[in-house]
Amino acid sequence: LFDAVAAKVDQQPCVAFLGNGSVGHYVKMVHNGIEYALMQLIAESYDLMKQVAGLSNKRLRETYDRWNRGPLKSFLIEITAEIFRQQDKIDGGELVDKILDSAQQKGTGKWTSQHAMDVGMPVPSIDSAVTMRQMSGLRDQRLEASKSLPLTFSISRIEPDVFVGHMEHALLFSFIVSFAQGMSLLAEVSREKNYSLNLQSCAKIWRGGCIIRAALLEEIRNAFRDDPSLKNLLNAPNLRERILESQESCRWIVKTAVESGIPAMTFSSSLAYFDAFRTARLPLNLVQAQRDYFGSHTYQRLDQEGVFHTDWAQKAIPARSASE
Amino acid sequence: LFDAVAAKVDQQPCVAFLGNGSVGHYVKMVHNGIEYALMQLIAESYDLMKQVAGLSNKRLRETYDRWNRGPLKSFLIEITAEIFRQQDKIDGGELVDKILDSAQQKGTGKWTSQHAMDVGMPVPSIDSAVTMRQMSGLRDQRLEASKSLPLTFSISRIEPDVFVGHMEHALLFSFIVSFAQGMSLLAEVSREKNYSLNLQSCAKIWRGGCIIRAALLEEIRNAFRDDPSLKNLLNAPNLRERILESQESCRWIVKTAVESGIPAMTFSSSLAYFDAFRTARLPLNLVQAQRDYFGSHTYQRLDQEGVFHTDWAQKAIPARSASE
Repeated sequence: LFDAVAAKVDQQPCVAFLGNGSVGHYVKMVHNGIEYALMQLIAESYDLMKQVAGLSNKRLRETYDRWNRGPLKSFLIEITAEIFRQQDKIDGGELVDKILDSAQQKGTGKWTSQHAMDVGMPVPSIDSAVTMRQMSGLRDQRLEASKSLPLTFSISRIEPDVFVGHMEHALLFSFIVSFAQGMSLLAEVSREKNYSLNLQSCAKIWRGGCIIRAALLEEIRNAFRDDPSLKNLLNAPNLRERILESQESCRWIVKTAVESGIPAMTFSSSLAYFDAFRTARLPLNLVQAQRDYFGSHTYQRLDQEGVFHTDWAQKAIPARSASE
Repeated sequence: LFDAVAAKVDQQPCVAFLGNGSVGHYVKMVHNGIEYALMQLIAESYDLMKQVAGLSNKRLRETYDRWNRGPLKSFLIEITAEIFRQQDKIDGGELVDKILDSAQQKGTGKWTSQHAMDVGMPVPSIDSAVTMRQMSGLRDQRLEASKSLPLTFSISRIEPDVFVGHMEHALLFSFIVSFAQGMSLLAEVSREKNYSLNLQSCAKIWRGGCIIRAALLEEIRNAFRDDPSLKNLLNAPNLRERILESQESCRWIVKTAVESGIPAMTFSSSLAYFDAFRTARLPLNLVQAQRDYFGSHTYQRLDQEGVFHTDWAQKAIPARSASE
């Protein structure tokens, strides 16, 4: 029966036994969380290519269509190209321009973000995609603010070919980061709940029949084949070159968005996640000092074991806490 | 009794009857969510001033101390200056440099983010602060990635006075945005739960005795005094000049962070929230088209009432949905 209904990739059906207990439901939820991130990234790419590079709907369609024949090949890029072709039969022109910019949600992206926070695995690309759906719903407040807080500068147009070239790499980079976040959550929850989830199988079945299916999943599958205990795709040797090459374009795109006053929250959150993930020393030592200052929450040291508390306001000698 | 224990500002105790039901607990939770955002912003300012402008701990202390005599005057800026003065009695040097960069949390910031998602009020500055606490906890993975994904460029040093000047305004801007997010959540939840929360009282009592107390709260209080039904501080007339002036510095700081490969997720999320909030037309029309394409979730139009569905793959005539 499965063979009859499931999509196939390389003659292999896109179904598998994933693991114990409720793992199938959990994997589907995280699939949808990743889907939110990819959709928001594509929406941001559309906004920036239209406003900064001046692309018409026709040119946008051609661009997504071309991308769908390269490393970005995926269902969501494919249908985006088709969406820009759709004519409005009521009023003429392209239908996409007539659609209200208030997106709705069924809740699975939100559940992913909320549960990831409980588990302690950060998924900011998904969080920001949920945020942007909610921002889109505050349309009356946005219309009011668009009048009282106008852009104080004009947007500098950028040559379309340069812009589109960077955007293709920025999208690829941010897609990888979004998958990395979702799959790191799956790895952690599988460990916590004894799901025995095989992430290689997961990447394998996502290659066909589902909304986030993408050529990229072949490389992701190989990453988990090479190291089934991999905790985060950003540490996968086979993705390293691609990540390091494409990050520069994402950096360029985020800078351009920031200069242009165009919100690109999921691009910027993806980049900041990457930059934080590869930072040996974050400034959260200061946060721990503040917490110990106002709440005696204690801190740990880099150079020795133990839990410490300092009477900061008194400038006293740091005392080992009672728990030692 | 309240008079005896409560902090006072201008001879007025910082306690008040806030409203119905569980409103006091809810306000305290959101207070803590805002606190997470402000702490993370200060941590990012420290990281950037140290790494990009080369400030020593002594210079950092002087900087936060000076800021505490200007518009940023607040408890968190004040204790940050004191933290940079604290010597390490175990090993010499400044204690802050010896503290482990893995921050912990009691959960109130996380609860704020999770509940805000349920309510549909975006609080990305708080979400990103929760994210960064969790990123800080993934220290082993970060250390591994710091070796395999090194910076592919060197950080350009920027003249300290220029950098510090922009940073003061960027912090002020992002503090306002963080308060705006938290208080918009309070306004919405008060409406939903019939709390009858008076946001002017809320801003008034936050001016003293609590961790987020700040000179800025006087202006925030005035915003709600002038318009008790104000849904978002970004639309407050009395804050308009300050917001429009300081946003440019935040834009400059985020660009510099992105160029330097230093994560500044809460600065960039605050700026993207601002840019999205004042955008009349977001690209979420594309997200609605995608949702209608793959899931027949329907969409609304800009030019007429109703709920619509299109058979996108068939390029068919848009049909009014059955619900009309």
